[in-house]
Amino acid sequence: MTSDQPRPGEVRAEIDPATTPADAGVIFIGRIQTQWKSRPECPRNIAEARERGIPAKLQLAPTWRRGLTGLSQGDHIIVLYWMSEAPRGLVIQKPHRRPQPTGVFSLRSPARPNPIALATVKILSLDQAAGRIEIDAIDCLDGTPLLDLKPWRPQMDLPADFKPPDT
Amino acid sequence: MTSDQPRPGEVRAEIDPATTPADAGVIFIGRIQTQWKSRPECPRNIAEARERGIPAKLQLAPTWRRGLTGLSQGDHIIVLYWMSEAPRGLVIQKPHRRPQPTGVFSLRSPARPNPIALATVKILSLDQAAGRIEIDAIDCLDGTPLLDLKPWRPQMDLPADFKPPDT
Repeated sequence: MTSDQPRPGEVRAEIDPATTPADAGVIFIGRIQTQWKSRPECPRNIAEARERGIPAKLQLAPTWRRGLTGLSQGDHIIVLYWMSEAPRGLVIQKPHRRPQPTGVFSLRSPARPNPIALATVKILSLDQAAGRIEIDAIDCLDGTPLLDLKPWRPQMDLPADFKPPDT
Repeated sequence: MTSDQPRPGEVRAEIDPATTPADAGVIFIGRIQTQWKSRPECPRNIAEARERGIPAKLQLAPTWRRGLTGLSQGDHIIVLYWMSEAPRGLVIQKPHRRPQPTGVFSLRSPARPNPIALATVKILSLDQAAGRIEIDAIDCLDGTPLLDLKPWRPQMDLPADFKPPDT
């Protein structure tokens, strides 16, 4: 994550969404349980999380557990979650590994106007009554709030003219 | 979209997120401009929108335009948008084309606890100064609020064990 102090070349928007009146409200439908208790421990992104190969859990609040009906072990889902610790006003950012500052919408940084992260993950096991899903990997802090789960669908989630890397 | 009257087999949660105190707030960073002025006109999803082949526009508010730096024509991006007209409390739903009711998290319905939709689209043209991006297709009503844009990255957004359909 980006620290709260801008780095050289970074640009803040003239408003801070964290202290601007909201246009709409989200509710937390559960929490993500991971091994990562502090930012430096977290994988940088879902690709790095998969390389580490450490499973995580999604824990749904009782209200929403019936909504898991129709999901099964082996399914791929898109998880949306709320990166509540990230600053929200950085329009131009300078990630450590990039030579030049660039726009927030060309980055997957958690620091964005609406700190909604997404990860495509695989269901290792699912206990609907307990509202608990074990997944292959994720990149966020323990306790991160959950916003949504969606089934991953190739006809929707692959780019329109997608060609696999090897063809 | 699902109408506000539950269909046979549908189940509402004991709370309605639309009238529950929010856990966090989102801001609208712009609007989506489409051909669709009413729900019945809208494509059912991004796959159907692509089949119709009608481009759409993303219009960013001035505050966020510099955040487009680093995006280019031909790039694929993930668009997050707010389906403000959809009911939010339906945990079990019965879409018209499905024989059985099923859980909201196994569906891509806009009716969900947090009505955040996502579509993977292609940039046809981009005018950063005007904050305007032309995209290949999208499935939502004209004027739908924008929440976020993210670059689509194969190493993150393809499932971990993804095999192309033909191999």
